[in-house]
Order: sequence, then C-alpha cells, then structure tokens
Amino acid sequence: MPYRAWFQCISGCDEKYELNEIVYQCKKCGDLLEVKHDMDKLRRHSSEHWKKLFDERYRRTRWPYGSSVWGKKEWVCPNVANENVVSLYEGGSNLFWAERLGKELGIADLWIKQCGNAHTGSFKDLGMTVLVSMVKQMIAEGKNIPAVACASTGDTSAALASYCAAAGILAIVFLPKNKVSHAQLIQPIANGALTLSIDTDFDGCMKLVREICSKNNIYLANSMNSLRIEGQKTVSMEIVQQFDWEVPDVVIVPGGNLGNTAALGKGFLMMKELGLIRKLPRIVCAQAAKANPLYLSYLKDFKEFTPIKAQKTLANAIQIGDPVSYKKAINVLKTFNGIVEQATEDELANASAQADKTGLFCCPHTGVALAVLIKLLKKNMIRPDEKVVVISTAHGLKFTEFKICYHENKLEEVNSRFANLPVEVSPQYDAVKTTICRKLEQMSS
Amino acid sequence: MPYRAWFQCISGCDEKYELNEIVYQCKKCGDLLEVKHDMDKLRRHSSEHWKKLFDERYRRTRWPYGSSVWGKKEWVCPNVANENVVSLYEGGSNLFWAERLGKELGIADLWIKQCGNAHTGSFKDLGMTVLVSMVKQMIAEGKNIPAVACASTGDTSAALASYCAAAGILAIVFLPKNKVSHAQLIQPIANGALTLSIDTDFDGCMKLVREICSKNNIYLANSMNSLRIEGQKTVSMEIVQQFDWEVPDVVIVPGGNLGNTAALGKGFLMMKELGLIRKLPRIVCAQAAKANPLYLSYLKDFKEFTPIKAQKTLANAIQIGDPVSYKKAINVLKTFNGIVEQATEDELANASAQADKTGLFCCPHTGVALAVLIKLLKKNMIRPDEKVVVISTAHGLKFTEFKICYHENKLEEVNSRFANLPVEVSPQYDAVKTTICRKLEQMSS
Repeated sequence: MPYRAWFQCISGCDEKYELNEIVYQCKKCGDLLEVKHDMDKLRRHSSEHWKKLFDERYRRTRWPYGSSVWGKKEWVCPNVANENVVSLYEGGSNLFWAERLGKELGIADLWIKQCGNAHTGSFKDLGMTVLVSMVKQMIAEGKNIPAVACASTGDTSAALASYCAAAGILAIVFLPKNKVSHAQLIQPIANGALTLSIDTDFDGCMKLVREICSKNNIYLANSMNSLRIEGQKTVSMEIVQQFDWEVPDVVIVPGGNLGNTAALGKGFLMMKELGLIRKLPRIVCAQAAKANPLYLSYLKDFKEFTPIKAQKTLANAIQIGDPVSYKKAINVLKTFNGIVEQATEDELANASAQADKTGLFCCPHTGVALAVLIKLLKKNMIRPDEKVVVISTAHGLKFTEFKICYHENKLEEVNSRFANLPVEVSPQYDAVKTTICRKLEQMSS
Repeated sequence: MPYRAWFQCISGCDEKYELNEIVYQCKKCGDLLEVKHDMDKLRRHSSEHWKKLFDERYRRTRWPYGSSVWGKKEWVCPNVANENVVSLYEGGSNLFWAERLGKELGIADLWIKQCGNAHTGSFKDLGMTVLVSMVKQMIAEGKNIPAVACASTGDTSAALASYCAAAGILAIVFLPKNKVSHAQLIQPIANGALTLSIDTDFDGCMKLVREICSKNNIYLANSMNSLRIEGQKTVSMEIVQQFDWEVPDVVIVPGGNLGNTAALGKGFLMMKELGLIRKLPRIVCAQAAKANPLYLSYLKDFKEFTPIKAQKTLANAIQIGDPVSYKKAINVLKTFNGIVEQATEDELANASAQADKTGLFCCPHTGVALAVLIKLLKKNMIRPDEKVVVISTAHGLKFTEFKICYHENKLEEVNSRFANLPVEVSPQYDAVKTTICRKLEQMSS
C-alpha cells in the first residue's frame, strides 16, 4: 500500500503498533495512542493535488470515496482495503448559513455545521465508520474477532449498532440495569445489537466490558480508541472545503469526553502541515457548567487538570467529569489560541430555542455551543466581523422530550424565554382571524 | 429570464396561470394544476449539457445550486431569483446499497433512497423549498402575503415551519383540538409556527384554513399545490444521477395522497423527453391495506376510482382514503407499466424491522414499500436480477414509539418476528460470557 498509518503513544515514549493490532492504549506507559501518518509520503503530492482529489471525490459515486470520510482515505485510514470499508455515506452535511440568527446575535458571518444530519443522527458516524471498517479488515485478514462491544447509552451505541448491522458483525452494548430505557436504546435494539442489562452501575459495566473484550478477542469501541478520531477530524477538512478552502476565524465545539475537540484540531493541523491552508482558526470548547472540568483547568491556564463529578445536565452526552481525551484537547487548545467557556442549563436551553426559531432544530449540546457564542460575543472575545462556525453534534429529533418540556416551561433551572405553545381558538372565522392578526402585530413590533 | 414555467390545468381545458399567482386549482373546471415548462427552450441544450451541468453543481458551494433541487433549477422553478431561494441544502441523500437485506430477500441489486435523511427528517423538504421560495419571490415582487398556512399534523407542517422560519415568514398550522399532541407538533412549535388548536375536526380545520387564506391573501401550502411536486420530482433525477445516469428497473414508493408517485413519474418523463435517459423504470406504488383506494382501483385496471374511509394504520402519513393526486398518479402508473400492491400492519412492521437489522432505521411507510417488495418478489412480479430502488420517505427517529412497541411486541395485528430486547444478566464475567456465546451460536446456526 502506498500510504501508511500506525498507532503511536502520545506521551513521547515512542511505542508504536499496527492499526490492525487490538490495542487501545500504550502497553508501556498506559497513555493514550494516536494515529500517525507517514507524512513524507503524503507530502510527495502538492496541496493542489490533494484539494483537487478531495473535491473530485466529494459526494460522487465511486466507492467508497463519495463518503466525505473515505474521500480523504489516504489521510484517514489508508490501511483498509476498499472492499472492507463499511460506509453509510458519512459527512457532506449542510453548513447552514445562520443569517437570521446571526442578525439577532449581531454577527454577520455565522455558520452551523449540521453533523447530526447523518445516518444515525449524530457526528459519531464519522468515527464509527473507520473503527468498524478496520474490524472488518482484520476479520478479512483472518483474525478471529467475534464481536465489537461498548458501554454507552447514547450516540456511540447507536452508531456502533448500525455500522455493525450493515457489516454483519455482532455489536454488544453493556448497560446498567436501571439506566436501560427502551426509548433511549431503540437504535441499538432495532439494529439488532445484543443489549445487556446488567445489575450494576456504569463503572461495573466498564469493568465487565473490558474483561470480556480482553479475554475473548472482542473489539472494544470505547472512546479511548483513536481510530474514531481519524474519522471525526474530517469535519475540519469538510468545513474548509465547503468554504472553498478558506479557513474560518473561529470554530466552536461542545466538549465532554473531548475527543471531538482533539479531532477538530488534528484535522486543521494536518491540512496546515500539508500546505492546504495557511492559518489556523481559534478553537472554542463549549462545556456545560454542570460538567466543566476543562473550563476549570482553562481558568488556571491549563496548569493543572482535575477530574470532577459531573452533575446532571440537559446536555447529557457531554455530562462527563473525567474526560478521556483531556490531554489531546489541551494540546489542541494551546496550539489554536483556544478558549473554553461554559453554559448554564438556562443559557443552553434558551440558545437552542432561539436558534430553532430561525429554522434549526438543535440538540442541547449545540445549545451549549450557541450559548457560549453569545457569551463570547458579549465579552468581545469573538468579534462581530469574524467568520464563526458552530459544530452541531446531533439531530434534534433525538431530543424531542427536551424540546417539549422547554416549550411547556417545565425544565428545571430554565426560564423558557422563547416558549411557543398551541393557541386554543374557537372554530369561527373571526376568532381565528383575530388570533392571526395579533401574532402578526407582535412580529412587526 | 431565459427559462419559463407556468401552472396549467391537467384536464386539458387549457387554463394557464403564472407561478407567482396565488392559485391552487383551475378556476374554470376546478381540476388540479401542474407546472409546465417551456420544453422548447430546455431542448436547445443537449442532454450531455444538462448532465454535465447537474453533475458540476451537485453538492458544491455555489448558491443555491449545491442543493440537489436547486441544482436542477431550470427544470424545477426558473421563475425564482437566486436571492429569494430558501434552501436548506435539500437532497443528496444516501442511495444505500442494501447488500445484506437483499441477500435475505433474494435480490442482489437492492437500493434504499434515504430521503428522510434531511433537514426536517422527511422528503417533504424537497417540495417545501420550492413553495416557500416562490412565496419569498412574490413578497419581494411587492405582493402582500402575510403568512403561509396548512392543516397538517405531520411532516408537511414540520417542513413548512422550518422553511418559513429560515425565511422569516410566519407559518400557521391549523389543527383539531383533540389531535394536538405536543410531541407530534414539536417541530412546528420549536420553529415558531403559530399553531392553532381548534375545537373542530380535521374537515372543519380544512374549511377554516381555506377561508382564512382566500380572504386574507395568506398562501395555502396544501397538498394540492403543484409547486411542491416540482421539488419532489428531483428524487428521480438524483437516483439516476447517483447511478451515473443509468435507470433502475423498478422504483417502489409508498403512496397516500399520491403526490410523490406523481412527482416520481414527472421526473423520469422529463429526463426521457430531454434525452437524458432512454428507458423508463417500472413504478410500484405501495399502499397500506388500511388505506388502499388506489390498490382497489388498480384491481379494476384503473377503470374507476372510489375514495374510501381510511382506517387507522401505523403508516399514519399515508392514512388517506381520498387522495388529492390520484389522477396524476394513475396517469403515471399507466405510463410506467405500474403496479399497486398493499401491505398489512403485520407485513409493514416486520419488513421495517427486518431492514433495521441490516443497519437501516426505517419509518413505517418505508416498511410498506419493503413489504410490497417482498410480496412482488414472491409473486415473480419483480425478478431477482432486477435493479430495484425503494424510496424511504422519513427518518426513523420520528417513529421511535412505533419501534419500541414493535420490539416489546405490543403492536396490534402485528406478530413481531424480529423483536429484540435487552437481556438481563447478572454482573459476573461467566454469566455475561455465556449470554454472548449463546447469541453467537444463534447467529451462526
């Protein structure tokens, strides 16, 4: 194969492993791994060559390059043969010009990258396609991998189950018994995953899934797995591509486990190193105030990082007190002149609802990112003339309960300033007309 | 403007209206209108020109042509100026190769066109972008149109509300009081639509919305509006484009109000007339057995058509006994050597679940289309070597309740043959391992 990538320990201890080895962290020092690429080989082509190639493939029909992840295959995971790629046509999501919302917030050049408009409804597809393809590749090479497993209640288990179902590989989801609601789990259930409801807590599940995987050659799709970062980093490339290879000034991303912050930075750095872009954007990591360990670290100039116990937040996918990828994220934020800001429940719910009124349908995590944008505009840390991209991580259709409760003003710690409810009217022309006229007057005043 | 389109009565009475006139049916005979294009002008370019142009624009960044609807603007609605287009990047949805499902069903070349992977989660976006853009155009031309209204509980109101929100135009949704559940309505509510809960039935709402619209210059976004068909017909073009301009043998589409069947046919016919394709596919309209007036008409060779009272079906978006577009759909089916087939509740729910197990996440309407495919394969009316496309109309995330009840085996008239539920396991390594081994044995047997 002309291009090559491998796992390498991020600590500098120089440990390396092949991508088709079942390994999740450094065997020597226990630190995180990252995927490294043979940059010398990639550099043999000019930046113009890569731009042209990526543009030619974008959304076209030649397998598997129409996927915006696999359209950058050489930069992502060259080690997988095309016939082993498990792709559901990732990426290519709308970069929504938030003209109306921007006007309300006083910023002209605001864009929402709608990563949730995806096969399983979240950005997790971007990483999962790489992980499951690598598993299929290993099976094709003769490795005996009977299943892929994870401990997750949310988007990760949904993406894992769907990609495994498409590939015909068993997915196993480990969950604490009392946290299993069928509604939350309907995606893995429908996609045929073996869903284990175990009489223990989340830590107990994590312990069991690790033990089961290590003793039975079952592949662990946890957030430590750095293959997923390789897929997720294509969001940076796609944003720049959608701006005709222009780099925005600021990118805001919600942060929980911090893999996405790390991925975003990795994508921009690789483009800069290979000459496709000349500048880097500022990266802003947006945390829920109820789960803000990185924000607390940022206040101390990242001199220390202390895990916390996350409290319950509406932004439940980022309700994480001890994030796996904090080291990678801090490195990125230092390099990108980064900012970390937090949003309260009230702020994230209202920001999400305000955006919905302009045609979006935001998940609460996107609400966190939008609330942080509003705060940074007020603090003059983002200027009104800057080009800003907000990463929207999941489809709002996964969060209808959150939205219903918001509009019924039933969310704790939230004053629903943009609530909208059906208006009861009697079935007479005049009554209806009066109601409509009143609404039109409100709008014009 | 170089290209031109207008409304024309389908009855042959030769009535014509401009697209910027507020008119929904023929003023002379009351029949449906359709959008007609100046085909002579379109024919001045070769088929190669059009293919190249559509391919060049597909998913690119030049406004508004990256949308797969507006990428075919000259064929869809040339009358709207680009600055008045209200687009959320429609189309470009995955044409999923259902390799595993096809193998199970005994057909090698099966494809699912995932129209539900869209901004508001259904194919309605394709038509609504045209309708709302035309309204914005009329407002820009100086017409006083204070709002756009519809009577709908489902995908239509969601799409209308979102596009109007993006454009800054008031959307009004008319609904019978007892049918208003906030969950069903959360999309229009979140997108700021004025949602009227009226103490009457659905017919009463239709009567009121018509009266309000006609007396107040409010635009009516009902299913009679043929602008929406122009957007929806781009699905045919996109499918062919995604097959590198090859025509599939069969296309299966769920049918309720039958606008989508009409649109599908219109797209293929226009491509044939302008030389982009040489053959037509067979079109199969798939109806729920609980709402099957077209199926009953088909059994009588379309010699008569009698509206029925539709019964409650899981496929609630096609629960329609008196479809608006039946004449257009029958014309299409006659031209395309068409078939109409029906699916019971048991068939549609099981077909949907079977597909989910191979990585999809189907809405019940897609289930109807898949169940019909299974029946027609059994009847040898579709051959195993034919290239078949199934149109998936909405995202499964809109139907989680349907899926939960299916897997709990709680749906009426349905025996859930593919049910999957969490398995309770005690928190010991051996217990978990035994459960996994049992599952793996099941799979290999």
